[in-house]
Amino acid sequence: MDIDFKKDDGLVPAIIQDHQTGDVLMLGFMNAASFEQTRATGEVVFFSRSRNKLWKKGESSGHVLKVREVRVDCDADALLVTVEAVGPGVCHEGYRSCFFRTIAADGTAEINAERTFAPEQVYGGEKTR
Amino acid sequence: MDIDFKKDDGLVPAIIQDHQTGDVLMLGFMNAASFEQTRATGEVVFFSRSRNKLWKKGESSGHVLKVREVRVDCDADALLVTVEAVGPGVCHEGYRSCFFRTIAADGTAEINAERTFAPEQVYGGEKTR
Repeated sequence: MDIDFKKDDGLVPAIIQDHQTGDVLMLGFMNAASFEQTRATGEVVFFSRSRNKLWKKGESSGHVLKVREVRVDCDADALLVTVEAVGPGVCHEGYRSCFFRTIAADGTAEINAERTFAPEQVYGGEKTR
Repeated sequence: MDIDFKKDDGLVPAIIQDHQTGDVLMLGFMNAASFEQTRATGEVVFFSRSRNKLWKKGESSGHVLKVREVRVDCDADALLVTVEAVGPGVCHEGYRSCFFRTIAADGTAEINAERTFAPEQVYGGEKTR
């Protein structure tokens, strides 16, 4: 199975979905090396576009993503990873999911989730993405 | 609410999730114009990277995606659109979801979904993505 890493400078989007609730937790990007590490270790490793390097999710927080299943789409240019998310949440802002806001009819963003942890206690001053 | 279209040449990934089942159906990309059309019409409009133009999902098949909710992530650079998917499936290969394959431990792709329609009858010879 060859993933098509050519369309976007060596990266493909990887959707992270909670295997129990079906909630979409976050979207990250993977290059070939992070995809291989994810498969080899069973824990999600992204490629950070802002830091331009591999990024093991949970490396500072301990909130790792344990892989249950990796799916690939018809064009082999997007991944869907179902996971067991260790810890109270994946979002560096302290929420279970990064998608904690809905865009209302008037275009404003409305938060409609509760914080599950205090990010400053988990991350300190470290870069989290 | 400003979406960050700057990171990837004016595009952000948009995850499409079935509002009833929670299944992730596909991933497409949106630019600012397709995002506005999606919000204005209530049906999903992508930007096709291969055709370099706006792409109303279902324009040839009739399998439109009716928007229920649009969510945005913490960094405002990814969208999660929950939809009512009209018709038997969203995938141009004839499946309900584009993520119809799992990557097995040995790296091979395994189809683990049933075809829900015959793509050649729906799309004919038209470009579908």
